[in-house]
Amino acid sequence: MSRLRGKVVIAQGGGPTAVINQSLVGAVLESRKFPEITDVWGALHGVRGIINETFVNLSEATTHNLERVAQTPSSALGSTRDKPDAEYCHRIFNVFKKHDVRYFFYIGGNDSSDTVRIVNEQAGQEGYELRTIHIPKTVDNDLPITDHCPGYPSAARFVACAISGVNADIRALSGVYIAVIMGRHAGWLTAAAALARKHDDDGPHLIYVPERQFSIDRYLDDIDRVYKQYGRCLVALSEGVWATRNEEGRVAPLAVDLMSRAGRQPEADAHGNIQLSGGALADELADIVQKRMGIRRVRADTFGYLQRSFPGVVSSVDAREAREVGEKAAHYACRHNVDGSVVIKRTGDYAVKYELARLADIAAKTRHLPDEYINTESNQVTDAFHSYLRPLLGDNLPCLERLWAPVARVG
Amino acid sequence: MSRLRGKVVIAQGGGPTAVINQSLVGAVLESRKFPEITDVWGALHGVRGIINETFVNLSEATTHNLERVAQTPSSALGSTRDKPDAEYCHRIFNVFKKHDVRYFFYIGGNDSSDTVRIVNEQAGQEGYELRTIHIPKTVDNDLPITDHCPGYPSAARFVACAISGVNADIRALSGVYIAVIMGRHAGWLTAAAALARKHDDDGPHLIYVPERQFSIDRYLDDIDRVYKQYGRCLVALSEGVWATRNEEGRVAPLAVDLMSRAGRQPEADAHGNIQLSGGALADELADIVQKRMGIRRVRADTFGYLQRSFPGVVSSVDAREAREVGEKAAHYACRHNVDGSVVIKRTGDYAVKYELARLADIAAKTRHLPDEYINTESNQVTDAFHSYLRPLLGDNLPCLERLWAPVARVG
Repeated sequence: MSRLRGKVVIAQGGGPTAVINQSLVGAVLESRKFPEITDVWGALHGVRGIINETFVNLSEATTHNLERVAQTPSSALGSTRDKPDAEYCHRIFNVFKKHDVRYFFYIGGNDSSDTVRIVNEQAGQEGYELRTIHIPKTVDNDLPITDHCPGYPSAARFVACAISGVNADIRALSGVYIAVIMGRHAGWLTAAAALARKHDDDGPHLIYVPERQFSIDRYLDDIDRVYKQYGRCLVALSEGVWATRNEEGRVAPLAVDLMSRAGRQPEADAHGNIQLSGGALADELADIVQKRMGIRRVRADTFGYLQRSFPGVVSSVDAREAREVGEKAAHYACRHNVDGSVVIKRTGDYAVKYELARLADIAAKTRHLPDEYINTESNQVTDAFHSYLRPLLGDNLPCLERLWAPVARVG
Repeated sequence: MSRLRGKVVIAQGGGPTAVINQSLVGAVLESRKFPEITDVWGALHGVRGIINETFVNLSEATTHNLERVAQTPSSALGSTRDKPDAEYCHRIFNVFKKHDVRYFFYIGGNDSSDTVRIVNEQAGQEGYELRTIHIPKTVDNDLPITDHCPGYPSAARFVACAISGVNADIRALSGVYIAVIMGRHAGWLTAAAALARKHDDDGPHLIYVPERQFSIDRYLDDIDRVYKQYGRCLVALSEGVWATRNEEGRVAPLAVDLMSRAGRQPEADAHGNIQLSGGALADELADIVQKRMGIRRVRADTFGYLQRSFPGVVSSVDAREAREVGEKAAHYACRHNVDGSVVIKRTGDYAVKYELARLADIAAKTRHLPDEYINTESNQVTDAFHSYLRPLLGDNLPCLERLWAPVARVG
């Protein structure tokens, strides 16, 4: 089987992660080894950079520069939220044909995998020989088939660290603390808060994810119970939790519900994703606890953009795997001459191997937290989830130690 | 000079920091070396633990446990916001007399230093021989006399890292990003955002601190100018920025202004500090930019409680100095038999020594950012501030590297 001769175009789409550049650098350095690859180009700002013909020549990036870029969070090539339709794809091919591009690697999440699928199908229809590989990344961890997505373990590490710090904070000053964590449709990142727990009375005492319907009454009952037991309560909650709107009988994300009550119009991107960030949900959930339960010290934070690209808070496992899925993209395309999405298979506790899935099986699909990871009360994760996530968080987790000293005799 | 024989009581007050336990452990381990010290007791939850007689015996804590506690963020003994009056102090002395306590070390910020001053004066008035030492800590860095406060460098490192990550994030996806950072009266922590800048076009492009009056019109003009130049704008702003309320002609924190417009009553603690946390300020400042300037992607985060006790994000310089001010407290009290507040003097670039200041010169005073650290336009910090902060951030700052590759020839 003779290999396709031509250029590689690589690009990054969607929200950034702490390790997305590991995948970029893995794919670039590996591609540069094949004599059939005439050049490795990076498109600036995703597919938009292709139709605008804004490319940089990564064959001329130094290894030192690339290795340092690999350690830097957030898409070094820039990103986009553009979702190509047939016409957009046609323009992509015209550019590919013009420059003899035969390999297209796109690093991204759910929406980007759909972009790769569309481009791949269009290539087939136009009879243009093109290898297309989707390289997975998303802090949301909601791609199907793969055991987990590069980017998620580092964001999970951030969330677990943040929650363990806040846990120490409210242990010192007491009260109720509510953390609103990223996750529009799936609760993977919010669930990661559970890994902050070391002692039985540590937070998060309550975890609410979009996989279960949220009820304000149950939320208040839960907090009341925990607060009475420990004198404090730490809640981790997904930005995308759903609530029933009784007046109209329909169900909407709680954040959107609160926004529309405040007379604000939720913003949506080209993929139809509603923008849920902002502090209103956290503030409202704190306010309700304060007013209805009469607890004075109630605090809430929205973790926002810090959780997906915080420099230095990186899982060593995530960094390594993100690098490897990038390398494997080059192997599958250049050596095996096939299209698909690179997926991670867990083969031990903890060991993995990489495989290639069909684009149609990945694209624009959402994997939710399975039932066995959520407790029956829908307010906590299970031991099975702990076992799933623990090896992904990486080495050298920070130290959190309680003072151990006997009570002084004062009688 | 014979040394006072009796117990040490040590406690922690106010908001936690990432290194407050270094000071605790420094003071405990050093105190345990003096034969005149009969026991080292820790009061749980600050001065409240003294009047409640809830003590732990730190003479019986293992060195291993203490060394790991030292690396753990947030007050290991618990904290309080209580502000003792004369009656409260009288109860403290009764407890001290009952248990033969002759040394009182209190680790805290502005309000805690005032507590130490009151207890010290009361001791003098009652003729009870007691050595009282204030050990400084505050992420706000607003204590006078000391070059900087332990806790601030680590919080500053968190802010600088967070902003450099967000900077990479908005560089990838463009738009306007507003970070609301802790700082009720002083802009030290917000100013730390400036250290995230590496390249000329890096954010934070604009920095607003409580030392200068904030104007919405100037804020919008500033963002407009930056956005036109770079296609993006990153703003760092203190939660405590002040705004003129024109209707009544009086000046109030912008956050309080927004809160009262929304019909909410600001919460205050025993020291009269108004609770400014919550996402309303950030949301409102983002909303104004979106509506008035028509920029679509405007995001805002309130860094909230993450910035003061994030495990693992610690300045090595801060950890060392926090330990040393704790040790010095024991030296001043036990060897020199004097009262006061331990302060850090900068003696080189970078070197420090420790001295003891009079409690009356520290207590309940606020040190603002000096004029030479703020630019004339009141929207950025100066090189002098960079020189002040840079050595405090510690070793091994995370890598942030831009891709360097030539533009591909497409013509």
